[in-house]
Amino acid sequence: MAITRIIGIDPGSRITGIGVVDSDGRHNKHVYSTCIRMGKQSFPERLGMIYQGITGIIQTYQPQAMSIENVFVSNNPSSALKLGQARGAAICAGVMSGLEVHEYSPKEVKQSVVGKGSADKEQVQHMVKILLNLSGRLQIDTSDALAVALSHAHYGAYKSKIAQATRK
Amino acid sequence: MAITRIIGIDPGSRITGIGVVDSDGRHNKHVYSTCIRMGKQSFPERLGMIYQGITGIIQTYQPQAMSIENVFVSNNPSSALKLGQARGAAICAGVMSGLEVHEYSPKEVKQSVVGKGSADKEQVQHMVKILLNLSGRLQIDTSDALAVALSHAHYGAYKSKIAQATRK
Repeated sequence: MAITRIIGIDPGSRITGIGVVDSDGRHNKHVYSTCIRMGKQSFPERLGMIYQGITGIIQTYQPQAMSIENVFVSNNPSSALKLGQARGAAICAGVMSGLEVHEYSPKEVKQSVVGKGSADKEQVQHMVKILLNLSGRLQIDTSDALAVALSHAHYGAYKSKIAQATRK
Repeated sequence: MAITRIIGIDPGSRITGIGVVDSDGRHNKHVYSTCIRMGKQSFPERLGMIYQGITGIIQTYQPQAMSIENVFVSNNPSSALKLGQARGAAICAGVMSGLEVHEYSPKEVKQSVVGKGSADKEQVQHMVKILLNLSGRLQIDTSDALAVALSHAHYGAYKSKIAQATRK
């Protein structure tokens, strides 16, 4: 199967996690991961850092798709607005670089990485390390970004299998 | 006094209003206004349209500053997230074009355009038309964008007067 390179994003207005993986739908390889940490800049400057940081990584690693968590914020409109802005900056960076942007819910991410939609953050991180053969400490925002990239690898492969099966 | 060209933005995930005005702090001139209407595109595509649309207008009209309403969403986290994403796309377009981005609360916008923080949308639109010498029908998103541009014109002039006075 062809290898797809996916950039996964865990957006946030203080820390934005970024992870790049290669996948053929069964085997996954860690290519690059980092997080952009924002300091005491103004909010617009932070959004610029997210946009520029992601655009730079796309130019360097040339992924074919972007995968981002479709966050659901339960009860705080003010945090939802901030998170939305960070997410908007990240998605723009993908769209303006010509990438298709795929969104997955937190449940879909957990389901695809751990096999259980109710898994906790530590279980997700543990499985990300196993799936990508990583050892040592991994920042939680980075492992969340890698997890959403892996989700697209899994769901993408699943969708293309269905497409193949219906063609037969 | 020097003339400043300001682009004002009223962001939204369905319609984003854009207005460009010239101001010397006392006299204001309408330069350009429009609104970007999103159709049935995917959400990432809509964010791309906002980013691209605003970037194009900045390239054409070369404003020196961006002004955007600092929205407060009272009780719906889901709308706040959507609005935040549209706002993030708009702010990114300003920052990536090298503009300073200034944020004003709805109250500050009303106060500066109508002279009353509790003014309604129709009063704001009425005053925008008078201040910019516009006649005929004006789309509400467009007049809101022009209103936030005018707010920066007023507050900007006020700030520079204070700066001059403290230098004396």
